Amino acid sequence: SHSINLAVIPGDGIGQEVVAQGLKVLAAVLPQDVKLETEEYDFGARRYHATGETLTDADLDSLKKHDAILLGAIGDPSVPSGVLERGFLLKLRFAFDHHVNLRPSKLLPGVATPLAGQPAIDFVVVREGTEGPYTGNGGTIRKGTEHEVATEVSVNTAFGVERVVRDAFARAQARPRKKLTLVHKNNVLTFAGHLWTDTFNRVAQEFPEVTTDYLHVDAATIFLVTDPARFDVIVTDNLFGDIITDLAAAVSGGIGVAASGNINPSRDFPSMFEPVHGSAPDIAGQGKADPTATVLSVALLLRHLGYETEAARVETAVEADLTERGTAVRTTDQIGDALAARVAS
Amino acid sequence: SHSINLAVIPGDGIGQEVVAQGLKVLAAVLPQDVKLETEEYDFGARRYHATGETLTDADLDSLKKHDAILLGAIGDPSVPSGVLERGFLLKLRFAFDHHVNLRPSKLLPGVATPLAGQPAIDFVVVREGTEGPYTGNGGTIRKGTEHEVATEVSVNTAFGVERVVRDAFARAQARPRKKLTLVHKNNVLTFAGHLWTDTFNRVAQEFPEVTTDYLHVDAATIFLVTDPARFDVIVTDNLFGDIITDLAAAVSGGIGVAASGNINPSRDFPSMFEPVHGSAPDIAGQGKADPTATVLSVALLLRHLGYETEAARVETAVEADLTERGTAVRTTDQIGDALAARVAS
Ligand SMILES: CC(C)[C@H](C(=O)O)[C@@H](O)C(=O)O
Ligand SMILES: CC(C)[C@H](C(=O)O)[C@@H](O)C(=O)O
Repeated sequence: SHSINLAVIPGDGIGQEVVAQGLKVLAAVLPQDVKLETEEYDFGARRYHATGETLTDADLDSLKKHDAILLGAIGDPSVPSGVLERGFLLKLRFAFDHHVNLRPSKLLPGVATPLAGQPAIDFVVVREGTEGPYTGNGGTIRKGTEHEVATEVSVNTAFGVERVVRDAFARAQARPRKKLTLVHKNNVLTFAGHLWTDTFNRVAQEFPEVTTDYLHVDAATIFLVTDPARFDVIVTDNLFGDIITDLAAAVSGGIGVAASGNINPSRDFPSMFEPVHGSAPDIAGQGKADPTATVLSVALLLRHLGYETEAARVETAVEADLTERGTAVRTTDQIGDALAARVAS
Repeated sequence: SHSINLAVIPGDGIGQEVVAQGLKVLAAVLPQDVKLETEEYDFGARRYHATGETLTDADLDSLKKHDAILLGAIGDPSVPSGVLERGFLLKLRFAFDHHVNLRPSKLLPGVATPLAGQPAIDFVVVREGTEGPYTGNGGTIRKGTEHEVATEVSVNTAFGVERVVRDAFARAQARPRKKLTLVHKNNVLTFAGHLWTDTFNRVAQEFPEVTTDYLHVDAATIFLVTDPARFDVIVTDNLFGDIITDLAAAVSGGIGVAASGNINPSRDFPSMFEPVHGSAPDIAGQGKADPTATVLSVALLLRHLGYETEAARVETAVEADLTERGTAVRTTDQIGDALAARVAS
């Protein structure tokens, strides 16, 4: 179609500022004949304090009508830990079955990394988004007493594991190095470990060109700092993916440039794109936030909607900007303007 | 007592070589009047292949009689993943209730780190060792079919969480910086998260001198590479501890120098001390393995048995050796000899 009907969720903290830049770049990169419609939604701490609501069924019905969702950040210290995470972010991922949580890591020349040397980092993590320890299964008995027992249940299904493993193989197949690493902890979490490992090995037979590899999650963290160049595509469980993608972001330029997509490849529901960084309330409203991660999330959004050329233009613009950025301090707006100018030209 | 009755488990791969150096240093550092008795046990891949056994009740009865256990490494690619881990390593931790899994990280001058700069790293992780996702709870239904469901249950008890949190506070209290960070994921794993957080905050009131802090596990991995100097003592869950201690080892000199203790502070059962690295079958038998992590594990063993002076002597010797080591390549034996000479003098 020649229109994009986008739900925009600025959210909390720096969300508003960075999303504005993402939209600026999106408008600049789209061909003239593509109509961009946006509808802004007020979710997050403000709405929660005003109404007690995080994400209602009516909200989900409205969001469902869009082609995609762009999110800034949700989270504020004034809200108890877990309320917005479980009540909004995870609720949305589960409601729209965002099972492919896509998180690319690429270290560009000139970008600061805490690692010595300038390792060649260019990989993507395909994190499962709707299962594992994130399902909210579990409970507490004898709460607050010395006999309290709290459980968390990681739920893993053949259906859920296979579809994300298959997606990861397809992504690896489409990349020049064609390498896929499964990250799990199958020597300890043997029930889920068998399911993941067996599924991975079975699907591998359909992708004979893809080189495969297995690492325990603890060993994976070591390689992420000692030899990140070894990774091409990683597929992993929801919780391991959460952990290693933050580490991956840290080593490949910081969470200021880490983008992510919460994708439902079936397109039955809109996918959501968001920077990995949070709401960073300490710097909110000061024009200090780096909108690069949001702009890169817009590139993932464009690619998901079939605008491959435009997605690549945004990524090229960011790469050029980052490479040339040096140590000059620019405002959120200035970076957004520079990127919009690059993609338009 | 003026004797140490030690169980020695060389195990697989490089285990034999590194344990020999650990014993050499132990013998050299002990005062003349302390009688050191050792009994060697044959566990690991060889015994498993020969007998199908990993760790029997009779084995546990024998091991129980010792004051402590020194382990090299258990694990071999010829044994299916999980068999030795669950059947030996974890079985022993659970049988002897090794709930304090102690893993210090200290970056010494001159030691290589993948991090740029030479950050001041000196912290210790107190990892819970007998609960969480390591209990083996969970299961599989419809195995091997498209309807397979595999679960893993993380079990957390007030008893288990409180004792390890209390141990960590006491360790923080005894250190100059007196700072303790709880690492969890309480915004997603809310049942276990509440138990950990509430327990942590309650015990904190008994340690008013200790500064406290909380980090989600994903954020903790970021700080471990961007600002590891911020950490003093970390207390965390079994699985998060597994992950972040491998990362901690990687940034603070590599797993070649990472020591650990599987401690039961009650002394009802012997505690076990082991290097964090595995059996490294690729370099086994070649005299290439670095025994430093084993020697540092011997220091933890000495401290646990009350030989504080001797423990400190071993650590000082290792620090001096590492600082002076430079790029000279030495054999396993040479490093052991050098360390034994240092502690003896
Ligand atoms: C905020 C939290 C629920 C979320 C997660 O754990 O998935 C975040 O850490 C992320 O990685 O997107
Ligand atoms: C080998 C494995 C069972 C073990 C663990 O996961 O605890 C290891 O990784 C460790 O950290 O001691």
